[in-house]
Amino acid sequence: MTVSSDTIFTMGRRTILSGLAALPVLYALPAMAQTGVADPLPSWNDTASKQAIVTFVERVTKAGSPDLVPPAERIATFDNDGTLWAEQPIYFQLAFALDRVKALAPLHPEWKDKEPFASLLKGDLKGALAGGEAAIFEIVTVTHSGMTTVEFEQIVQDWIATARHPVTKRLYSEMVYQPMLELLAYLRANGFKTFIVSGGGIDFMRVFAERVYGVPPEQTIGSSGKLDFELRDGKPVLMKMPELNFNDDKNGKPVGIQIHIGRQPIAAFGNSDGDLQMLEWARAGAGVRFALLVHHTDAEREWAYDRTSSIGRLDKALDVAQAEGWTVVDMKNDWKTIFPFGGK
Amino acid sequence: MTVSSDTIFTMGRRTILSGLAALPVLYALPAMAQTGVADPLPSWNDTASKQAIVTFVERVTKAGSPDLVPPAERIATFDNDGTLWAEQPIYFQLAFALDRVKALAPLHPEWKDKEPFASLLKGDLKGALAGGEAAIFEIVTVTHSGMTTVEFEQIVQDWIATARHPVTKRLYSEMVYQPMLELLAYLRANGFKTFIVSGGGIDFMRVFAERVYGVPPEQTIGSSGKLDFELRDGKPVLMKMPELNFNDDKNGKPVGIQIHIGRQPIAAFGNSDGDLQMLEWARAGAGVRFALLVHHTDAEREWAYDRTSSIGRLDKALDVAQAEGWTVVDMKNDWKTIFPFGGK
Repeated sequence: MTVSSDTIFTMGRRTILSGLAALPVLYALPAMAQTGVADPLPSWNDTASKQAIVTFVERVTKAGSPDLVPPAERIATFDNDGTLWAEQPIYFQLAFALDRVKALAPLHPEWKDKEPFASLLKGDLKGALAGGEAAIFEIVTVTHSGMTTVEFEQIVQDWIATARHPVTKRLYSEMVYQPMLELLAYLRANGFKTFIVSGGGIDFMRVFAERVYGVPPEQTIGSSGKLDFELRDGKPVLMKMPELNFNDDKNGKPVGIQIHIGRQPIAAFGNSDGDLQMLEWARAGAGVRFALLVHHTDAEREWAYDRTSSIGRLDKALDVAQAEGWTVVDMKNDWKTIFPFGGK
Repeated sequence: MTVSSDTIFTMGRRTILSGLAALPVLYALPAMAQTGVADPLPSWNDTASKQAIVTFVERVTKAGSPDLVPPAERIATFDNDGTLWAEQPIYFQLAFALDRVKALAPLHPEWKDKEPFASLLKGDLKGALAGGEAAIFEIVTVTHSGMTTVEFEQIVQDWIATARHPVTKRLYSEMVYQPMLELLAYLRANGFKTFIVSGGGIDFMRVFAERVYGVPPEQTIGSSGKLDFELRDGKPVLMKMPELNFNDDKNGKPVGIQIHIGRQPIAAFGNSDGDLQMLEWARAGAGVRFALLVHHTDAEREWAYDRTSSIGRLDKALDVAQAEGWTVVDMKNDWKTIFPFGGK
């Protein structure tokens, strides 16, 4: 049995615990939080960030609170890269795409003379990415189209089960932030519906979001390519086409939220300028609202980067957060643990 | 409190009953079904259609059944027009658009000389619609764009609370099929997550889908226009743009299901050729699957139409259903009651 947020939320406590028992130990969530006996956020230091989270949740959920929000409206949206899992030294989905280029190379002899593939196949990542966004778009397109959705799911499944991070040598699905796993579980235990709203690929994330984050496919929102409904040998399939359907980043995040959820979130969580509009959108509604930025400040246990980083740049959003009084998580000081296995 | 499927599904029986008590009597769902004491589908005659539904639900939900499906995968998708509510003499959303053209006419003096508006404003609906799909598209576009999502929601809210059907003089939200309301509740009581997947407008349906069908916004999928995230007087808004984003009909239905849900439904419900691909997609997965067509056969209590109707044409899908042994509901003989208030 997989543990979806709905499963956790809909069944009795016995089922919750038996479901959790099926999870790998690394991702064990603080089950005792359900009972109120233990600290629901044990990997968070007792700093202002943790206090702000708990205060917000209590204000919108405690019976009798003037700020009480009905469960159906307790919508929380989370960015993925850099917010729920790491994104250095390159976005993990790009690492997947690069691995796929290598795997597919024998079928594409023409890539030997064609950038960005030629450099990539010679092991020159820097040269391959010199073409900037256009090069990345081409790499993502050839590795994310030309197959059915079911075939793609299997490809990602195989990769996520075996590929390892170049620095930590851990599975990518282990490079998730333990404090954020606890936060997801804490919100769900308080009647929130948790959504991922990421610039990452929707079909890519859905392969592991339920197992790793407890977020089911229908609550995972991301960028997507066009799909074509076709009959193949008389059987219906959805073909992944080499054309962008939706870019779920920056201005696209509030749009994706409206299309998929149809309600304004009351809480949003991000880490970069790509999340600014989502956080502004969550804050724009009436009543008590919560916006949080994860600030990567721990070069030792994770990575330290912000205003000038090419990956996960946090510049304008940091200014807005400071001006508006949003919660900014200082990873180094606010988080007791970074990854379930500790730090890098 | 509104009763969403999640609310019903996640809380104890006491909450279910107190939630139902808040519903208008017309839409009272068979609460006793939860206990197995009463018939969960009292408005269905005891015919093959009802038996097929119950047999399917028991096969995929009964503990120990070899065909048991985990709750997270119990996805059921429903068309709206002609499946959950009526669609004659014109699609209800088109009736909304026509009313809006009349309301907006004073702001558009140029419409007096411009089709399809000129005919429409003279009361000549037939003349206005003579332009076919292009005319309808123009009427829908001018009435569904140029405002924020919040403003549009209020406009639909006002309309659905007051506008009345030309034949029955009932509110449009009363023109829903009582047997289908019972079916939605029966599936949810058995751990299904119910989704609407309609060619109708996503923002339009979401205004009433939760109250009327118990389907929350995030489980309501439909056609949509492009949205633009903008600042208006410094406040973020989503503007509805005069451009099609997604057409959730025919081949678009399996595509919409993949984008929004990310799982193949195990049961799908429709009434027209526009639903054929959705039903085929639901049936294409492994294991026990269910496909149902509502066949409009009751000219007295509702309307009788199928192969040659310009609205809700049921021709090719009827052939496929008969060839493949799908369940085809004969409204006249299978349904004890049509609308909560009886029949037209």
